Amino acid sequence: MSFQNPVFIPGPTNMPDALRKACDMPTLDHRSPLFGEILQPALSGVKKILKSELAEVFIFPSTGTGGWETVITNTLSPGDKILAARNGMFSHRWIDLCQRHGLDVVIVDTPWGTGLPADRYEEILAADTHHEIKAVLATHNETATGVKSDIAAVRRALNNAKHPALLYVDGVSSIASMDFRMDEWGVDAAVTGSQKGFMLPAGLAIVGLSPKAQAAVDQGKLPRTFFDIRDMRKSYAVNAYPYTPAVGLLNGLKHSCDMLLSEGLDNVFARHHRIAEGVRAAVHAWGLQLCAGSRDVYSDTVSAIRTPEGFNATDIITHAAGKYGVAFGVGLGEVAGKVFRIGHLGSLTDVMTLSGLATAEMVMADLGLSIKLGSGVAAAQDYYRTEEAVSSKEAA
Amino acid sequence: MSFQNPVFIPGPTNMPDALRKACDMPTLDHRSPLFGEILQPALSGVKKILKSELAEVFIFPSTGTGGWETVITNTLSPGDKILAARNGMFSHRWIDLCQRHGLDVVIVDTPWGTGLPADRYEEILAADTHHEIKAVLATHNETATGVKSDIAAVRRALNNAKHPALLYVDGVSSIASMDFRMDEWGVDAAVTGSQKGFMLPAGLAIVGLSPKAQAAVDQGKLPRTFFDIRDMRKSYAVNAYPYTPAVGLLNGLKHSCDMLLSEGLDNVFARHHRIAEGVRAAVHAWGLQLCAGSRDVYSDTVSAIRTPEGFNATDIITHAAGKYGVAFGVGLGEVAGKVFRIGHLGSLTDVMTLSGLATAEMVMADLGLSIKLGSGVAAAQDYYRTEEAVSSKEAA
Amino acid sequence: MSFQNPVFIPGPTNMPDALRKACDMPTLDHRSPLFGEILQPALSGVKKILKSELAEVFIFPSTGTGGWETVITNTLSPGDKILAARNGMFSHRWIDLCQRHGLDVVIVDTPWGTGLPADRYEEILAADTHHEIKAVLATHNETATGVKSDIAAVRRALNNAKHPALLYVDGVSSIASMDFRMDEWGVDAAVTGSQKGFMLPAGLAIVGLSPKAQAAVDQGKLPRTFFDIRDMRKSYAVNAYPYTPAVGLLNGLKHSCDMLLSEGLDNVFARHHRIAEGVRAAVHAWGLQLCAGSRDVYSDTVSAIRTPEGFNATDIITHAAGKYGVAFGVGLGEVAGKVFRIGHLGSLTDVMTLSGLATAEMVMADLGLSIKLGSGVAAAQDYYRTEEAVSSKEAA
Amino acid sequence: MSFQNPVFIPGPTNMPDALRKACDMPTLDHRSPLFGEILQPALSGVKKILKSELAEVFIFPSTGTGGWETVITNTLSPGDKILAARNGMFSHRWIDLCQRHGLDVVIVDTPWGTGLPADRYEEILAADTHHEIKAVLATHNETATGVKSDIAAVRRALNNAKHPALLYVDGVSSIASMDFRMDEWGVDAAVTGSQKGFMLPAGLAIVGLSPKAQAAVDQGKLPRTFFDIRDMRKSYAVNAYPYTPAVGLLNGLKHSCDMLLSEGLDNVFARHHRIAEGVRAAVHAWGLQLCAGSRDVYSDTVSAIRTPEGFNATDIITHAAGKYGVAFGVGLGEVAGKVFRIGHLGSLTDVMTLSGLATAEMVMADLGLSIKLGSGVAAAQDYYRTEEAVSSKEAA
Repeated sequence: MSFQNPVFIPGPTNMPDALRKACDMPTLDHRSPLFGEILQPALSGVKKILKSELAEVFIFPSTGTGGWETVITNTLSPGDKILAARNGMFSHRWIDLCQRHGLDVVIVDTPWGTGLPADRYEEILAADTHHEIKAVLATHNETATGVKSDIAAVRRALNNAKHPALLYVDGVSSIASMDFRMDEWGVDAAVTGSQKGFMLPAGLAIVGLSPKAQAAVDQGKLPRTFFDIRDMRKSYAVNAYPYTPAVGLLNGLKHSCDMLLSEGLDNVFARHHRIAEGVRAAVHAWGLQLCAGSRDVYSDTVSAIRTPEGFNATDIITHAAGKYGVAFGVGLGEVAGKVFRIGHLGSLTDVMTLSGLATAEMVMADLGLSIKLGSGVAAAQDYYRTEEAVSSKEAA
Repeated sequence: MSFQNPVFIPGPTNMPDALRKACDMPTLDHRSPLFGEILQPALSGVKKILKSELAEVFIFPSTGTGGWETVITNTLSPGDKILAARNGMFSHRWIDLCQRHGLDVVIVDTPWGTGLPADRYEEILAADTHHEIKAVLATHNETATGVKSDIAAVRRALNNAKHPALLYVDGVSSIASMDFRMDEWGVDAAVTGSQKGFMLPAGLAIVGLSPKAQAAVDQGKLPRTFFDIRDMRKSYAVNAYPYTPAVGLLNGLKHSCDMLLSEGLDNVFARHHRIAEGVRAAVHAWGLQLCAGSRDVYSDTVSAIRTPEGFNATDIITHAAGKYGVAFGVGLGEVAGKVFRIGHLGSLTDVMTLSGLATAEMVMADLGLSIKLGSGVAAAQDYYRTEEAVSSKEAA
Repeated sequence: MSFQNPVFIPGPTNMPDALRKACDMPTLDHRSPLFGEILQPALSGVKKILKSELAEVFIFPSTGTGGWETVITNTLSPGDKILAARNGMFSHRWIDLCQRHGLDVVIVDTPWGTGLPADRYEEILAADTHHEIKAVLATHNETATGVKSDIAAVRRALNNAKHPALLYVDGVSSIASMDFRMDEWGVDAAVTGSQKGFMLPAGLAIVGLSPKAQAAVDQGKLPRTFFDIRDMRKSYAVNAYPYTPAVGLLNGLKHSCDMLLSEGLDNVFARHHRIAEGVRAAVHAWGLQLCAGSRDVYSDTVSAIRTPEGFNATDIITHAAGKYGVAFGVGLGEVAGKVFRIGHLGSLTDVMTLSGLATAEMVMADLGLSIKLGSGVAAAQDYYRTEEAVSSKEAA
Repeated sequence: MSFQNPVFIPGPTNMPDALRKACDMPTLDHRSPLFGEILQPALSGVKKILKSELAEVFIFPSTGTGGWETVITNTLSPGDKILAARNGMFSHRWIDLCQRHGLDVVIVDTPWGTGLPADRYEEILAADTHHEIKAVLATHNETATGVKSDIAAVRRALNNAKHPALLYVDGVSSIASMDFRMDEWGVDAAVTGSQKGFMLPAGLAIVGLSPKAQAAVDQGKLPRTFFDIRDMRKSYAVNAYPYTPAVGLLNGLKHSCDMLLSEGLDNVFARHHRIAEGVRAAVHAWGLQLCAGSRDVYSDTVSAIRTPEGFNATDIITHAAGKYGVAFGVGLGEVAGKVFRIGHLGSLTDVMTLSGLATAEMVMADLGLSIKLGSGVAAAQDYYRTEEAVSSKEAA
């Protein structure tokens, strides 16, 4: 456990030293007024990152999965019908969670590597004239396939169908790294975690709820206590928690929001895009294909890279960790063994990224793939050299 | 937020520097083999602290409340009858959680300040000839009142009644500070968190399940995903988690267990008892009473101290924080305004404790209580001076 | 090494968490422009704390002893005559250093426990009509005896004698804790370290030189390289060091200055005075005497406390460390075995101080001194309770 | 100051997280017995790394320059004649230090890029039939030129000349990274610092003295106090320091020695050699030359790389820092503007190194040098891929 090399998993990400220090706090009495000085800026910081004026933010000592469960159990009732597309492991898991909680999920199976089918959503919603569908699930960024979906299009589908269903979005691997517009897109629930774009350790489920979703909270009949928004809401009013909060992580979140907002969200997104483009240039130079089928769905936080037929992509992960001490992401579900993933979100530079690409090249060469050493690195270098970083451009 | 003084809340506790450093880890790929080197020692360390050979331990990125919910939702079904005494705020909250999850709770209301009524349990269980009661809840240490209960007696009640109900124990503020014997007492589920005896930040729900409770997991019909033991069990088998684990906290837990076990559990318990006796000597010297009604229920981790009639005990907490920068615990529920609490668990020394007692004296004098400055301190000093610390005794 | 209790040595002091974090920096290239963003604020911060507009500040990876050597070797030449009083271990050591470097020291032996004899200085200087004395040494705060001297009076002695000698002041245990006025007092060299009032780890020698002392640098014929002001001056002009600087400590110093200046120097001094008065109230209540002979020389950063005839004061230090894990300061030199010292500078609160006093009481009682437990604590509590802290007063 | 990328300066090096944590210690009383538990293992650890049974080690809160001064001022006297070659900036500076302390240095000017001329040393020593030369200086690794010298050869020169002069070696950038054999080579004084092979922050001067050098200490007539070995020796005997030690850094040094020795010194050296060979393969692929003139003098800790005539090598450093946030080493002295340096010592992996090489390529391309992107990276990748790491080889 020498922790010398950066990680290239799609979260938890590399952490800035300043954020590690913000999390590593001595004990603070969470019932003292000092706690409010951490909680309130964290909540309002997240709202700004969600680009929302209207939402209320709730933060649980949990993970993204707990965020999904929060949204579902607080606003829906057993037997409720919901609509969801499955185009990767994480959309699959959210559907599974809903089913385990007794919801009736209309599943739109969608090829892994493509985005959410807004048109199919629209057809189904338009056909649901009795408005039995209570909520629509949308995974903004499929971490398993490196596919970004168009949430605005999903909103248009709802609007076109004049359907009142709530729109729930998994932004776990997009929020704080890629553009997310909660109010503009009419998102009713946004879910994320601390360990991705916020560059913190895992341990926080972060949920934003629109006024409409909040209204649904009082109707939801699914049992819950730990994740109960009602308790949380009551406690927040007095700067408290219904149980012991993860004070250090919340302090980290407050500082992370400050850091991101002072960089400027557009700069943050442009930075992620730039890093991602370099990775994609390398993939192209290697002669490999992304799992994501078309440029419009390329994710700026993670790339899933298809390996040649007959090759076990998981060997790349094992070999990279064992020989070079570098962590890449494994293929999951349908694409297990067929892709390996390079996470490129959070605290990452051109320079760090190049070391990941160089490692991937050595690994693939070691495993017998016909990869020219230095080829992907050169393609990325070329891009990074000439494509000026946004913040320098801004400064100029 | 100058963090100079120790805290005297009943958790989160003061943290040893070494444990803060163990938690403050760079990012480690939780899907790499390195993660198993953290997870397995953490799990087996907790088992030893539970004094269990039989239990399996499950750790969630959550808190004690999540631990309660884990136990209930995994092993019980809607409408199940359970038995629980209510003798403080935390037993009350666990009951409330059960009711929200649709359980039928037979509540034995018990005066706050007394222990769990094992005899009443026995009567009720004996009368339940159809064994409709599926589980018995017992709060080992009522953090709100500073009352320790006799779990062995509750087990005897079950045995005497020849009742097969599961025995679920909240050990949040006892485990790792006071003696807890999971196997010997026939505890089926033990619940605790990271931020008390383990001296870590909040953020882990720690649950031990007996084989009998584990068997019940597959019968439990309450919906759950985040807290699902089945997913956790499957993942542990491959040193993994069903979602992103809180790696740093788990590493902290591993080191905390090492630290506690190398001190020796009996020494840990004796240390807590000794610190607590000093606090109680001070309370006596002040002419005040504990909320805990008799010596046999005195808690070694927290003392709730009754203030005189007509005095608002909560003022003590506010004034101590505002003027002296010291955190004590507020009275909760039935004893709100009537008691203030001194937490004396976790990383604490005689010397630190004396500073808390000295502060309490200044605060009470400031607020007009007739307290002789130095009186409680002197009583505690006298005790600490003459009552040799266990570890020195051991060493001799 | 459990580090739970505060230390009560007269430096290194207890450290604020924020300053530990400021020191614990990843590697930064000390030849990059980023280094200037640390160095310059550190230098200008120290100047403000010295209350100097005129001085230039030099910081070496060293300690206070290195600071003494810097001043002496840079501005004096072998055989130079200097004047110094010896009233404690640290004035003694500085004299010794001068002698080892071939200076001719006119020593005014002064009883330990009294301040510097400005009148004797004046007599000697007035008699030195040929101005053979090149420099006068003055220890502002004798850490060994807890005696503060009147530097303004020493300056008056020089002025009255119309003597051009340089005035060199050891402010190691005063600067940043007690009022120090470099320009107003006409101090030509001020020496301190990082581990006292600046609340940092040991490792920096901090030296301020007046223009007159700087002019002397080019005349000084004592050999030196590591401590050569000329190299340092040249390097500072380009934000660099003549060798590898202690970047983390410098960053800590920058933050320490910010912290002290934003509290306000007068508040810092008042805080130290208030803490010290509480300690002195306790000493009085114990029926013991300070080594410092009169109220006007009481130090606000350290109290040396005389123990009864026939008692070995060093036993207090050994016993406190061994049984209670608390560090007090040992008696040094002439007062070895006759005094023990309580350091009360740096990051300390009323509450922390009370724990030190309570410990001292237990220790003295353990060792058979007739000390009433709680007596000193009560006296200090009474003072702290009623003597409002300056910053609260300010705020009102 | 985002600290995301590794540094590639020849010290301070990248630091392992575990060593940063070892340095970041709460305040410990350096006069308590606990201090000995840090000091003694640090001293004995360094001895093992020096491969010495005979030497005594002395550690000052200072830097390598202070180490040079320690050796010179403790063992020599004004006017003493010494012999030294000048083949780079650091040998130059040591000579300068000696001259400033009044020594008579016989300088052997040697082309920068070549090693120490043992044959010239032998001639001069043989000619010095009156043994006026008291000491011979040798820079083991010229950090400015990336040139390693053969200390065993220098020892043979002394032996062949049957000359009794002391042999003083600057091992600042070699010790703990490259093989150093104090006893076998008959080194009388070895000097290093904390911020190179030990992977710690700057702030410690580390000096090993042979029995013969220690005997010379009592004869040395140069004035010194801070660096006086006699005080240090006396203090060490009681586990103390003559002034306040840098406790945290010493604790870091203790842990660093543990870390290096448990890896195995031969493995440490092989690891450095391997990393260096990769860098050299890249330099070759770029069509550039090392400053070091021949393979036998290649340094395994730093490579100084000549840039084409007419190109200002310093631009590389400025541009790399400004555009890519990466620190390389500037050319110094005679080779200023003619070389840039890549430090490759301390905590570094293949993967980190590749990111430095990739950065250098981008920088050189940006600045108009005809460098094929990816070419050096590919050469290094090829080497790292196929040249198995020593520790894995060992494990096999």
